[in-house]
Amino acid sequence: MSEKKEAILKGIEDKTIKIGIIGLGYVGLPLAIAFLRSGYRVFGFEVDREKRELLDRGRSYVADVADDELAQAVESGAFTSTDNSRVLRECNAIIICVPTPLDKFGKPDMTYIENACKEVGENLSAGTLVSLESTTYPTTTEEFMLPIIEGESQLKEGADFWVCYSPERVDPGNQHFRTHNTPKIVAGLGIDAQEVALALYGQAVESVYPVSSPRVAEMAKILENTYRLVNISLINEMALLSGRMGIDIWEVIEAAKSKPYGFQPFYPGPGIGGHCIPLDPFYLEYVAKKYSFDLTMIHTAGHINMMMPHRMTIKINSALNRHQKSINGSKIIFMGVAYKPNVADSRESPAIKIMDEIADKGGKVKFHDSYVPSIKTPKLGVQNSVELSSQLLSEQDCVVIATRHSNLDIGFVLENSRLVVDLANAVPVGTDTVYKL
Amino acid sequence: MSEKKEAILKGIEDKTIKIGIIGLGYVGLPLAIAFLRSGYRVFGFEVDREKRELLDRGRSYVADVADDELAQAVESGAFTSTDNSRVLRECNAIIICVPTPLDKFGKPDMTYIENACKEVGENLSAGTLVSLESTTYPTTTEEFMLPIIEGESQLKEGADFWVCYSPERVDPGNQHFRTHNTPKIVAGLGIDAQEVALALYGQAVESVYPVSSPRVAEMAKILENTYRLVNISLINEMALLSGRMGIDIWEVIEAAKSKPYGFQPFYPGPGIGGHCIPLDPFYLEYVAKKYSFDLTMIHTAGHINMMMPHRMTIKINSALNRHQKSINGSKIIFMGVAYKPNVADSRESPAIKIMDEIADKGGKVKFHDSYVPSIKTPKLGVQNSVELSSQLLSEQDCVVIATRHSNLDIGFVLENSRLVVDLANAVPVGTDTVYKL
Repeated sequence: MSEKKEAILKGIEDKTIKIGIIGLGYVGLPLAIAFLRSGYRVFGFEVDREKRELLDRGRSYVADVADDELAQAVESGAFTSTDNSRVLRECNAIIICVPTPLDKFGKPDMTYIENACKEVGENLSAGTLVSLESTTYPTTTEEFMLPIIEGESQLKEGADFWVCYSPERVDPGNQHFRTHNTPKIVAGLGIDAQEVALALYGQAVESVYPVSSPRVAEMAKILENTYRLVNISLINEMALLSGRMGIDIWEVIEAAKSKPYGFQPFYPGPGIGGHCIPLDPFYLEYVAKKYSFDLTMIHTAGHINMMMPHRMTIKINSALNRHQKSINGSKIIFMGVAYKPNVADSRESPAIKIMDEIADKGGKVKFHDSYVPSIKTPKLGVQNSVELSSQLLSEQDCVVIATRHSNLDIGFVLENSRLVVDLANAVPVGTDTVYKL
Repeated sequence: MSEKKEAILKGIEDKTIKIGIIGLGYVGLPLAIAFLRSGYRVFGFEVDREKRELLDRGRSYVADVADDELAQAVESGAFTSTDNSRVLRECNAIIICVPTPLDKFGKPDMTYIENACKEVGENLSAGTLVSLESTTYPTTTEEFMLPIIEGESQLKEGADFWVCYSPERVDPGNQHFRTHNTPKIVAGLGIDAQEVALALYGQAVESVYPVSSPRVAEMAKILENTYRLVNISLINEMALLSGRMGIDIWEVIEAAKSKPYGFQPFYPGPGIGGHCIPLDPFYLEYVAKKYSFDLTMIHTAGHINMMMPHRMTIKINSALNRHQKSINGSKIIFMGVAYKPNVADSRESPAIKIMDEIADKGGKVKFHDSYVPSIKTPKLGVQNSVELSSQLLSEQDCVVIATRHSNLDIGFVLENSRLVVDLANAVPVGTDTVYKL
């Protein structure tokens, strides 16, 4: 066994290694907590000053992480957040948890990974494990990440340091499966990297799932999210057709669920939001072009998803039309702008896209969301959530239920509204005044 | 309660009604057995004389039905098969289980349902329940079936007879879920029809799942099969890309399966066969046009599936190419031509399409299938399964594993073959002489 490998394995075992986590979002922060619980010293690298200030005061901005636990780790000195990449030199294990968004033309934006890799390369000590957790296209670890780190550090993977890919699987708001109890795919670049990576992650999570190469792990993560994108898009298309045929898609799905094998239900909605499902598959579609390959399923699913907010605007228009009203001049309030129920995240939320289109057509738009105090949209700018009241509701021409948080009082909404467009199956049956997706 | 309804409900209860089942295929015959087990008199209507002759001798041609049980029912006089539609006049419940194939242009072929409905209408006694089980597009029961039966019989649904839709969910070869223990969706056309239909099916199956209208039940069944078509097509496309990227798709799927929520695995193969998945969704795509609606997900999935056999031919060509051989002049044997493992059904089997394309390009094609003694293909005509031997295998330029029956001795195939193209994950790892999908 090489000396370096022996050293890091021993350091993992006796918890003397220091762990650096780059990016303290909904992935990095819970992961930091998982390592802190196991007794490691953790440095968190975060460029956002506001987040660092919150962390310094022991305040969590991620729903899956409790203030108490965080505050204790900060107070004890086990956890420090910083934006100083030179601190990476002290770390024996570095885990990259930065975002992989799409740019405004829908192409992968790799600058976060690129910058993180540069910082790691510039500050890499020999004998360190570097792990990437960001969801990205297959071959990223080997063909994108590795050359940057080796180039910047002038160190050699396998001999001087190790690289692995271990995709995050965080499902924000999931009450049962958290970072520590969701099986973790781990793929070292070689046998040594795999051994070190499995040893490290084995300390933070209950079960690890080793695979033979980073590209297998990269593809597995994208397959998981592509499966969801494709199936939600399918059910959204079926919902639109069902609407035209006078068929209640929600009843259809419940009936199909009675099949005890070979079926998994997905539910329609105003479109797919969040930071994973609407983005990740397009990383794969993008890299496929390099192999002269068209991923037609992802392309078609993406098209359906892209059109959903517009189609919902048409539904709202049709509902108003039955009351002899136009969008132009109507007062329309949205209930729920988070991308899914019971989370505070409104990134990529279809509700916001619909609000902007409604505003663009002359509608007077407000929103209420008990989780999301304010949003910023391209058209409307900054908007704050308004308080629900019977008077407010009764003044609206249309109430759109876009995301149904558990704490929304549907009965109150129905009692006080003239017209409801229900995009979230909040109301069991459609009526003259309730239009269901 | 109307007299007629009272009479049929009593007849169901005390098992004095006679049940007619039109179409004794893989759906109708197991259903007949289920009613026979409950003690009913059953007439089976089957136009195929060969099938009737087998039935008369107590011989089952459906794997899910045992000879013993059938022979006993025939001998006791509880079950009779016939092609005489006038016998329908004696039946108080008529269940239509005829095929719904596509014609050669890929359009729904409704002639089987149409002819069955005409026969029912011509021979309908007042007080009868008529149920349709064939998978078909939503609105079929109300807008296609009902007018034919009412027109031919001059009787009125609701007053004189009842109509329901209850989709078959038979999964041929499924060892656990059979007709009697798979929940059955039931949709009567009105309240009375629903009451009678639930009473009837409740005698044959362990659990019934009532829905509000036939079109909901029709859509639910198509959703189940569309879900499978779309997901198999997705994984087939992912498999083709993975092949180009040097990624083992089978390892990817196993890794993704380690996610404990939100994922259901599907597996790639040479294409989708059988009588359901490759056909049913196109019934929906077809009727959608009537509503000016393009079902792009089904369309895209259908395209991928249609192209799979051709893409497999290209894989075989690439494998031969590495041995400096062409398809033209090569001896190529196919292992398994059934559309899925451990069944004798080769309908719509992709293996047969590949065999024809290989033959068309000058390949010398044979096949071995322990379940399927002979096939008839458009290009090759009738072909019989050949016996496996080490000599036969060693004479082949290429052995294609298309469908992996459990009883296929993979070790024997590998030992004696020069080149294997494995489309069914029969061999764990690819080598110089084993090409995996």
